[in-house]
Amino acid sequence: MNDQIELYGANTGNTLRAAIALEEAGIVYSPRWLDLHAREQLDPAYLTLNPAGKVPTLIDHGMTPALVINQSNAIIHYAEAKAPGRLAPAQPGPERIRVIDRYFFFVTDVIAPSHAAFFLHQAGQDKAAAIIDLRVIEQLTYAESFLTDDFMAGQQFSMADISAFTIVTAFRDRLDWKQLPQLSRWFDTVESRPSIQRARAAFQNR
Amino acid sequence: MNDQIELYGANTGNTLRAAIALEEAGIVYSPRWLDLHAREQLDPAYLTLNPAGKVPTLIDHGMTPALVINQSNAIIHYAEAKAPGRLAPAQPGPERIRVIDRYFFFVTDVIAPSHAAFFLHQAGQDKAAAIIDLRVIEQLTYAESFLTDDFMAGQQFSMADISAFTIVTAFRDRLDWKQLPQLSRWFDTVESRPSIQRARAAFQNR
Ligand SMILES: N[C@@H](CCC(=O)N[C@@H](CS)C(=O)NCC(=O)O)C(=O)O
Ligand SMILES: N[C@@H](CCC(=O)N[C@@H](CS)C(=O)NCC(=O)O)C(=O)O
Repeated sequence: MNDQIELYGANTGNTLRAAIALEEAGIVYSPRWLDLHAREQLDPAYLTLNPAGKVPTLIDHGMTPALVINQSNAIIHYAEAKAPGRLAPAQPGPERIRVIDRYFFFVTDVIAPSHAAFFLHQAGQDKAAAIIDLRVIEQLTYAESFLTDDFMAGQQFSMADISAFTIVTAFRDRLDWKQLPQLSRWFDTVESRPSIQRARAAFQNR
Repeated sequence: MNDQIELYGANTGNTLRAAIALEEAGIVYSPRWLDLHAREQLDPAYLTLNPAGKVPTLIDHGMTPALVINQSNAIIHYAEAKAPGRLAPAQPGPERIRVIDRYFFFVTDVIAPSHAAFFLHQAGQDKAAAIIDLRVIEQLTYAESFLTDDFMAGQQFSMADISAFTIVTAFRDRLDWKQLPQLSRWFDTVESRPSIQRARAAFQNR
């Protein structure tokens, strides 16, 4: 571990996604855990890095000025570009496009609504949140139909699996696993990857 | 116009985003308008291209087998890769990362919740939808604070402007424009680009 690359985060899906991408890309980083309940994300020093007061944030001190990235998905792209071939096929072409297409399915059609549901719960709109959650579950059930290969976008692990993994993790207690044999097999395979276990451990609540 | 690349779509933000990316990248394509009210997106022939029955879908017949892309954001990445430098700085580095970071801010923190709100309206959950809509407006107001350059991620037009433009368009009647001088200036500049006008015209309702 060295301090050239720091990842600020918490035990959330967005942070986990970024951490898994770094781990899979073989990028050495120092995890910096923020206590969201204690509002550490609103600390003035942190707000200079992430004015929205959200996690994750990556800082790469190897560049001058230091490179700061706020969006978990932009951190995934950073990791992908640093380690060509590890998160998506490096060559442009149909295999690479398939990975990007599936990756965005999870990012925009599954993960993003789940955030809206989380927010609606907080606002006391439980019925509306439940409607959205049901839709998330429907989309994950749809994923069963395209899981014909080992991974979400072919025979290789890719960033599509990273985006899928964090949302399936969040919904694992609400899925009817007996109806989802492919998703179940896929989840076990992905969950056992050392990168995933290291990423989880890095941002476990203290 | 030739038929090598077809873009199926409708007069929706997702289609518009894909069409603007193709136009800005200088990629020649044939627009194929689907009547969503007539449920043309559920036509069996279309479902073989897009099993979710959604728009847009891009088909590139220049590859064998033909390349099919379902996600609007994957179409943006396809266009970006085909025309390096037009939608994002081609070189890896801080400028490119900034574009990607801002682009994802709009994709995940602004556009995606707006889809959830649209769906809640349809489900009769107007109050919950209004809560989400308010959050979308807050995020667009936050964008005002980082619009210090000509465009969303620097002095050059980029894919960050594409994602921002479609959502600002959808909310243009609900924004308090007097409080948003930078966003207002930016919107006028972007709206006057020929690519945007061509993309809009291609999927106007017939
Ligand atoms: N689109 C952003 C979303 C970041 C985000 O919403 N983070 C949440 C946790 S999942 C957060 O930091 N919330 C703390 C707060 O809002 O105070 C990303 O993907 O990184
Ligand atoms: N994440 C997808 C979303 C596509 C989507 O939801 N399209 C909507 C229109 S905005 C649609 O086709 N709806 C038709 C339907 O659901 O029947 C993308 O970005 O392309």
